Amino acid sequence: MTIVRADQPMGLKQLFDETGSSTYTYLLWDTETKDCVLVDPVDVKVDRDLKEVEELGLNLIYGINTHAHADHITGTHLLKQQVPTMKSIISAASQAKADLTVANGDRIVFGNRSLVVKSTPGHTEGCVSFVADDESFVLTGDALLIQGCGRTDFQGGSAEHLYQSVHSQLFSLPKSTIVYPAHDYKSRTQSSIGAELESNPRLGGGKTQDDFVEIMAGLDLAYPKKIDVAVPANMRCGVPDVE
Amino acid sequence: MTIVRADQPMGLKQLFDETGSSTYTYLLWDTETKDCVLVDPVDVKVDRDLKEVEELGLNLIYGINTHAHADHITGTHLLKQQVPTMKSIISAASQAKADLTVANGDRIVFGNRSLVVKSTPGHTEGCVSFVADDESFVLTGDALLIQGCGRTDFQGGSAEHLYQSVHSQLFSLPKSTIVYPAHDYKSRTQSSIGAELESNPRLGGGKTQDDFVEIMAGLDLAYPKKIDVAVPANMRCGVPDVE
Ligand SMILES: [Fe+2]
Ligand SMILES: [Fe+2]
Repeated sequence: MTIVRADQPMGLKQLFDETGSSTYTYLLWDTETKDCVLVDPVDVKVDRDLKEVEELGLNLIYGINTHAHADHITGTHLLKQQVPTMKSIISAASQAKADLTVANGDRIVFGNRSLVVKSTPGHTEGCVSFVADDESFVLTGDALLIQGCGRTDFQGGSAEHLYQSVHSQLFSLPKSTIVYPAHDYKSRTQSSIGAELESNPRLGGGKTQDDFVEIMAGLDLAYPKKIDVAVPANMRCGVPDVE
Repeated sequence: MTIVRADQPMGLKQLFDETGSSTYTYLLWDTETKDCVLVDPVDVKVDRDLKEVEELGLNLIYGINTHAHADHITGTHLLKQQVPTMKSIISAASQAKADLTVANGDRIVFGNRSLVVKSTPGHTEGCVSFVADDESFVLTGDALLIQGCGRTDFQGGSAEHLYQSVHSQLFSLPKSTIVYPAHDYKSRTQSSIGAELESNPRLGGGKTQDDFVEIMAGLDLAYPKKIDVAVPANMRCGVPDVE
């Protein structure tokens, strides 16, 4: 119960996994109440994440995944072991297990701040993005990357769906909204809706859906190294296969 | 700390002052936590308002005014006497006194629900509207009325400003957003952004700013009966003049 001022940003720390997956994990918090969430944590980086939470004096409420990743195992299961009160969240459409599932338009509240869920399928069927309450930033997962996008050739991927998702749900945000993706492989940390709308070589600059489908069909991508291990584990919220 | 579902509406009760001002007071609440706010309460209707709060088992957090009214005295002062923990809110631009002042883009949080402040001057210099967190409705005060609008000929009113406010801040909302005004004199209870955009005889249907300025200049309005009492009192949050 408070007034969140227009110029009062959410706490945000972008954390990088340099061990192989090039994943960005986002620690977000209410600077007043100290309640926080972790978005797209990576199993091998959970200790770092929890150290950040502790050093900032935060209470970890939710561990959230944008989708069931194919390139790394989520850290949510390990986080839950160390912070038993934390609840994991993933989209219902992902069909993965979590404490709570979300769908388009749901609002994840922590303290007096919140993230709005936008359904952005196409990279996977269950991909979602998270828009900050003040629309100052959006966590796009693998739907929209900086000058790129997630592949659409497995896990229920669909270039048509991804084009529609990005154009209807993301490019409709203010041009000034910062884009924070789940990965970057060239050390770029952020972009904006305006910049991607103008010059994303696959999805922006006036590219049509047909252009995009052709571009995505022409990519000659290797089979992801970790997919056979990561996807089944992530469908269980990162719980190791004990059989 | 929760997930507010996309299909979970805010609690809302529209209450009418039939004693003369034809004011709509809005009781809004988080159906989960029971925290509530009253928007544009009227002094003579405070007992009714508090009875509603009690019957619904709600906790009154804020008493909010869209602007310093000229046609009735706000109920916020009397509410504060009966619920000492309640805080009054008005816009900083109104220059009126209240416990808390707000400005464009601020978010008023009660429980896990919230209202976003939109600056909509023109009827008065300090008029604001309140958009529900899920954009399902907007409380427009006297800026936008059903098939009408507030007068612009006193209290720092400006037809130019009102036209710009309505077009940039209100008509840019989804067409389905319900419009709840501060008054109606013909027993209409609600409209929608789409309906007003299409057929508001002053501001919609393609009317230009010049059209609007001409319409407003041509209205031959009586001096408001209560203005000399109501405005000074409302600048003090409804506290009676004891001198
Ligand atoms: Fe992915
Ligand atoms: Fe008014």
